[in-house]
Amino acid sequence: MTDGKARIAILGASGYTGSELVRLLVRHPRAEIVALTADRKAGQAMADVFPQFAPLSLPRLITIEEVDWSGVDLAFCALPHGTTQLVIKKVFETAPHIKIVDLSADFRLRDPGAYEQWYDHAHQALELQQEAVFGLVELYRTEIKKARLVANPGCHTTTAILPVVPLIEAGAIEPEGLIIDSKTGMSGAGRAAKEAMLFSEVSEGIHAYGVGSHRHMGELDQEYSKAAGRSIVPSFTPHLAPMNRGIYATIYAKTMAGIGADGVHRVLADFYKSEPFVHVLPLGQVPQSRFVRGSNMMIIGVAADRQPGRVIILATLDNLVKGASGQAVQNMNVVLGFPETMGLEQIALFP
Amino acid sequence: MTDGKARIAILGASGYTGSELVRLLVRHPRAEIVALTADRKAGQAMADVFPQFAPLSLPRLITIEEVDWSGVDLAFCALPHGTTQLVIKKVFETAPHIKIVDLSADFRLRDPGAYEQWYDHAHQALELQQEAVFGLVELYRTEIKKARLVANPGCHTTTAILPVVPLIEAGAIEPEGLIIDSKTGMSGAGRAAKEAMLFSEVSEGIHAYGVGSHRHMGELDQEYSKAAGRSIVPSFTPHLAPMNRGIYATIYAKTMAGIGADGVHRVLADFYKSEPFVHVLPLGQVPQSRFVRGSNMMIIGVAADRQPGRVIILATLDNLVKGASGQAVQNMNVVLGFPETMGLEQIALFP
Amino acid sequence: MTDGKARIAILGASGYTGSELVRLLVRHPRAEIVALTADRKAGQAMADVFPQFAPLSLPRLITIEEVDWSGVDLAFCALPHGTTQLVIKKVFETAPHIKIVDLSADFRLRDPGAYEQWYDHAHQALELQQEAVFGLVELYRTEIKKARLVANPGCHTTTAILPVVPLIEAGAIEPEGLIIDSKTGMSGAGRAAKEAMLFSEVSEGIHAYGVGSHRHMGELDQEYSKAAGRSIVPSFTPHLAPMNRGIYATIYAKTMAGIGADGVHRVLADFYKSEPFVHVLPLGQVPQSRFVRGSNMMIIGVAADRQPGRVIILATLDNLVKGASGQAVQNMNVVLGFPETMGLEQIALFP
Amino acid sequence: MTDGKARIAILGASGYTGSELVRLLVRHPRAEIVALTADRKAGQAMADVFPQFAPLSLPRLITIEEVDWSGVDLAFCALPHGTTQLVIKKVFETAPHIKIVDLSADFRLRDPGAYEQWYDHAHQALELQQEAVFGLVELYRTEIKKARLVANPGCHTTTAILPVVPLIEAGAIEPEGLIIDSKTGMSGAGRAAKEAMLFSEVSEGIHAYGVGSHRHMGELDQEYSKAAGRSIVPSFTPHLAPMNRGIYATIYAKTMAGIGADGVHRVLADFYKSEPFVHVLPLGQVPQSRFVRGSNMMIIGVAADRQPGRVIILATLDNLVKGASGQAVQNMNVVLGFPETMGLEQIALFP
Repeated sequence: MTDGKARIAILGASGYTGSELVRLLVRHPRAEIVALTADRKAGQAMADVFPQFAPLSLPRLITIEEVDWSGVDLAFCALPHGTTQLVIKKVFETAPHIKIVDLSADFRLRDPGAYEQWYDHAHQALELQQEAVFGLVELYRTEIKKARLVANPGCHTTTAILPVVPLIEAGAIEPEGLIIDSKTGMSGAGRAAKEAMLFSEVSEGIHAYGVGSHRHMGELDQEYSKAAGRSIVPSFTPHLAPMNRGIYATIYAKTMAGIGADGVHRVLADFYKSEPFVHVLPLGQVPQSRFVRGSNMMIIGVAADRQPGRVIILATLDNLVKGASGQAVQNMNVVLGFPETMGLEQIALFP
Repeated sequence: MTDGKARIAILGASGYTGSELVRLLVRHPRAEIVALTADRKAGQAMADVFPQFAPLSLPRLITIEEVDWSGVDLAFCALPHGTTQLVIKKVFETAPHIKIVDLSADFRLRDPGAYEQWYDHAHQALELQQEAVFGLVELYRTEIKKARLVANPGCHTTTAILPVVPLIEAGAIEPEGLIIDSKTGMSGAGRAAKEAMLFSEVSEGIHAYGVGSHRHMGELDQEYSKAAGRSIVPSFTPHLAPMNRGIYATIYAKTMAGIGADGVHRVLADFYKSEPFVHVLPLGQVPQSRFVRGSNMMIIGVAADRQPGRVIILATLDNLVKGASGQAVQNMNVVLGFPETMGLEQIALFP
Repeated sequence: MTDGKARIAILGASGYTGSELVRLLVRHPRAEIVALTADRKAGQAMADVFPQFAPLSLPRLITIEEVDWSGVDLAFCALPHGTTQLVIKKVFETAPHIKIVDLSADFRLRDPGAYEQWYDHAHQALELQQEAVFGLVELYRTEIKKARLVANPGCHTTTAILPVVPLIEAGAIEPEGLIIDSKTGMSGAGRAAKEAMLFSEVSEGIHAYGVGSHRHMGELDQEYSKAAGRSIVPSFTPHLAPMNRGIYATIYAKTMAGIGADGVHRVLADFYKSEPFVHVLPLGQVPQSRFVRGSNMMIIGVAADRQPGRVIILATLDNLVKGASGQAVQNMNVVLGFPETMGLEQIALFP
Repeated sequence: MTDGKARIAILGASGYTGSELVRLLVRHPRAEIVALTADRKAGQAMADVFPQFAPLSLPRLITIEEVDWSGVDLAFCALPHGTTQLVIKKVFETAPHIKIVDLSADFRLRDPGAYEQWYDHAHQALELQQEAVFGLVELYRTEIKKARLVANPGCHTTTAILPVVPLIEAGAIEPEGLIIDSKTGMSGAGRAAKEAMLFSEVSEGIHAYGVGSHRHMGELDQEYSKAAGRSIVPSFTPHLAPMNRGIYATIYAKTMAGIGADGVHRVLADFYKSEPFVHVLPLGQVPQSRFVRGSNMMIIGVAADRQPGRVIILATLDNLVKGASGQAVQNMNVVLGFPETMGLEQIALFP
C-alpha cells in the first residue's frame, strides 16, 4: 500500500462487473486503481469502452500478461468462468502476496464433485478451491478476514441464500420443498453480443430460462445443505425481466410447526439488525427492486401465505452491486481491514 | 342483426380493455359497433381518447343512459368492479333480449359467500350471478353457447386456470400445495391516473403486490376446487414487470405418484391439441410473453423440476387479448354462433 | 397465381423485416407464402427463429439456391445492402416473369454516381437500377403499377419524404435549409448480434448517430431535388430512442413568403385527404409514435414555429410496417392489382 | 452551521427533485438535513414516500409552517411554480439570514414583463426577482458566490444554454435561426398522478410536446439575447422519450463566416477545459445520455453539418442531477464557500 491506499488491479475491466468495480473504486478513499485488463480490448482507453469514465484519468487497458504484480495489493477477477481458475493459479505463482476477490463461479463450490457435476470438467486448481472462502460477508465475515482468495457469490445466489440460511439454521422453516422464483434484469447476462440479448428481443416481455438446470443451483445446494446439516435440493427458476438492474426472489417455504410468518420475520429482523447492507422490512411489507438500484443494499420482506403453514419471503438487490461488484468491494474492505461500508454508501438511484 | 352483422355496444370504452375491444371489433367481419360509452368522457370523440382510432369513423362517446338498447344485439361491459352488477341488472330489465359479455369480476364467482368474502359486500344481483357462465371457452364452451350473460375471467386467472384444471381433472398433479408465481405488465392495471402507475415509478424495476390477498384468488379457488371435487387453496403471488402487455405464470406442482413431467406434458398437449388459441410447446421448451403480444394465443410449456415428484408449468398470454378483450370476443363468437376464431387471427407483434 | 392467390417468396426471412412480412402475409387474403429463405439458418423451422409463428404451418427455411422460381409470382427481398443487387440480377436471369419488391437500399438511388458516392463501390446491376421504381406509393403509384422491380424506401426516408415533397412541389416551403431531426426505435437496426444493440446498452438512454453522414440522406437529396427542380441538401440527424418500433421526424422548414403554418397544413391535408395510410392531424395537433405501432399508418402534424417565417412538421410511422414491410405489401398490392389496403387494415396496438 | 456542517431544509421533499436532493445531501460531508417538508404528506416518514431511504435516519415530513428557521442555514425550494414566490418571500421575512436555492421557475426571468408573458400573471415578489441570481455556475459563478437567492435553471434550459452562450459570445455562431431539438426522459415531468404520464401511455413511443409554446423558452430568450446583445428568439421543441433520466439536445446553428465545426469545437473545448462538470468530447464524437445517468456531468459533442456553413452541437445531462438537484447542490457549494464538487463526485450509473 502507498499513502494508506490499496493498489488495485481489475482483471476483465471491459464487462459490466468490471466497469461497476471501477465506478465504485474511483471514489473509494483507500483504493487506487493501478491496472485494468481486457484482453481483446487491450490498448484502448477505458473511456473508449465505457464513455462514462471519459472525464477521469484511468490506466489504459492492458493484457493480463502485462500486469506488474509487484505493484498490486489486491486483484478483482471479473473473467469468464473456467479460464479464471487457470489465471488465478498463475497469478498466485507469480505473486503469492496478493489478495484476490474472484467474481466468477470458479471457486464458489467447495466440493470438487459438485463442481464437476455442474461445470462438466474437473477443477484445474484444486488446492486453491479448498483454500477459497465463500464471499458472503454476512455469513462468513470471520473467515473472509483471514482469506487470501475470496469467491464472490453469484447474484441469484446471494439473493436466495441470505434470506434463507438464517431461517434454516434457526429451525424456522423446513429446508425441504423450498421454491425460489427469481427475476433478474439484463445486465446480469453481461456484455457479450448475443442475439437473445438484443434490445428488440428482450424489451416488452418476460420469460423463464435455465428451468431445472441453472448452474447457480450448485451454490444453493451447498449453502442450504450446510445450514441444514443434510443434503437439500431446492427448486430454483430464474426469469429475465425487461430492465437493466435488479434481482427479485420470491421464496416459498414451509414453516416449522408452531412458527408463523411473524416468527419467520423475527428471525430475519434479528439476524440482520446490525448489518449495514441488509434491511428487513416490517412484516407484510413488500420490497421493490428499484429501491436498491445502484446501491449495495439488500431488502427483505416477509408475508404470510394463504396456505396454512407456509410463508412467502421476498428479497431484492442490485445484481451488479450487492450481487457482484459492490459485494466484491465489501469483501475487499473486510480482507484489507477497511471499514466495511467504505466506498459503498451511495443511496439507490430512483427514479 | 343487420346484414348478418351483430350490433355491438361497448360500455366503458375509455379504458384499455375498451379500446382493445374496439381494435378487434372494427376489423371483425360480423360486428358493427353502434354505441360506445364513457361516463366522464361522454361527448368526446373516441379519437380524442385513443388517437390510434383517428383515421376511423366511430360513434361518439355517450353515457350509458343514452344508449338505445333496441338497436343492440350484444354488449361488452368494461366497467369497474362493483358498479357493473347494478348496470347489467338495469340493462337486462330494459332489454332482456341482449347478450352481455362482462369483463369485470362481478359475475365470476358462483358462490355468493365467496363473493362477499373477497369483495366485502353482498352481491346486488344474485339471480344474474347464478345465471352467469364463466367465460373460459376452452373449459365451458357448451354452457357459453347457451348463455345470456358471460363472466369473462381475469387475466391472471385465465393464465393460471387453463394449464392447471386439465391436470387436476386427469389426476396428473396434486391439487394441494400448488404455487403460482405470476408476472404481469402494466396495462392490466388500467388507465386510472395513480402515482404508483407512473412511468418513473414502474420502469426499470419489479415487485410483488397483493401478496397473500389478491382478489383473483377467489376464481382460482373456485375452478381448482371444482376440478378437484374438494376445497383447494393455492398460493398465488402476482408481480408487476416493467412492460405493457403480457402475463407469465410459473406454476409449481407436485405430480401424482408415477407421473413425470412427460406425463403432465402429455395431458396438456392432448387436451389442447384442437384448440385454436392454446398452444402447448414440446416438453422442456419455455414460452416467452413477447411471442403472444397482441394476439389471442396462450402458450404453455412444461419442464421437469429438480425436486423429484415436482413439475414446473409455464404459461403466458397477452393480458389485454386472451386475458381480457380477445377472450371476450371469443366468447361473443361462441354466444352468437360465429366461427370461434373470427376477428382474432392476428399474429403476435414481435419485435 | 393459384386460386387467385399470388405465390410469394421471402428472401431473408430470419430478420425483423422478414418476420414482419410473414406476419402480414399469412393473413393476406390473396397471398400464399411458398418459400422462405435464410442462408445461415436454412433447414430450421420458421418457428425456431420466430416462436410467434409456432402455431402456424409455414415452409421451412431454405437457401436462395433452393427456391423453385417457377412456382413464384412475386418475391420480397429483405437481404443486406450490397449483396441484394447480385441476388436480384440472378433471380431475374432465372425467372424474368417475377415481380420483386426489394427492401434493401440497393435500387433506391437512380443516379449511379450518387450510389457510388454513398456506398463506396460501383453498382453491380446498372440496368436494373435504371428500371427500378422508387416504392413510395403515395408519390409513385402510376409507375409502381407497371413496375417489375420496386425499390422500397427506407424508414427514415419515408418519414422525411412524404411530409416534405408535396410542400416543395406546392411552393409552400423553401427547399433550402431543411432540418430533419429523426428519432427511431431499435428494431430498425435489425437482428444482428452487436454489442451496441444489447438491451443494457440501449435502454434508459438516447443518442444521435451517423451525424452528418447517414446513408439514407442520398434518398432525401434525390427526392427533394426532384421536387425542387434543383440540387437540395438537407440536414438530417437520426437518433436512437429506447423503444422497439417507431420513427418520429421533427422537420424544421422556412415557409415561402406569405405562407403560414395554416397554409402549410392546408397543402398536406389536401394532398393526403384520400390516402388510406397517411393521416394529417388538425393544425397544431402533435402525433405520437405509439399510435401507429404495428399499423401501416403514417400520422403528420403541423405547428407554427415561434420564429416568424418558419414551420415545424411532425411525422411518425412504424419503421417495420409503413417504414418497411407494410409499405412493401402495399407495393405488392399495387403491382399485382389487388386493393391497396388489402392485408394492411390492422389498427395500431396501443398500449 | 454546527461542526462545519450547513443545516439544510428541503421544501417539497416528496417530489423527484426533492428526493434527489436528499440522495445527494445525505452523503455530502458538510450538509446536515434538518427539515423536510411536504404539505400533503406531512406526518409521514420519508421512507414511506421514497422507500430507498428506509435504512436511513431522516427527519419526518412536516409542513412549511412547522419549520424552525432559526436552525436552518440554507433552504432548497422544490415547490410548484407560482406558489414558490410567495413562500420564499415569507421565509425571507421570517429569516432574512437564510440562503435559498430555488428549483422552480419563479425567479429565473429577470424581466418582469417576460415573466408575465410566459406565466400569465404579474410576479408577486418583484424585489426578490431583481435580487435573484441565475444559477448556472459555469456562467455566473462570481455572482452566485455573493447571492442570497439563487434561481436554479430548468433542465432543458441548462442543456441548451451551456453549449450555446459561449459560442454566441465568441462570435462563432449566428445567434439568429437557432434550432434546438430537445429530448427528455419522464422524471422531468414530476410525480403528479396524470394519465399522460402512466407507464402504459409513455413506454414504447416518442412524441413532441409544447411545440412552439414551451415556457422554458423564456430562459433561452433571456440568456441568448444577453450573450448576443440583442433580442434573440430560438426555435425549441421538447420531446418525451421512454426513459427515466436524461436530456439530449440536438442544436442546429449557422456558423459565422470563416468558422467551421472545428472552430466551434475549439471555442467550447477551451471555454470548459477547467470545468469539473462539463466535458467536451473530441470533434465528431457524439454523446449519449446514458453515460451521465445519476451524475452531475454534462457532455457536449460538436459535428460538422452537411449543409455548408452549419454546425450540429449535441449536449446531454441527467435532468434530475445537473438539470436540477445536482446543479442546486453545486450552487449551494458556491454560495457557502464549499469546494464546488463536494458531494457531487458520483460516476454515472451505466448500465
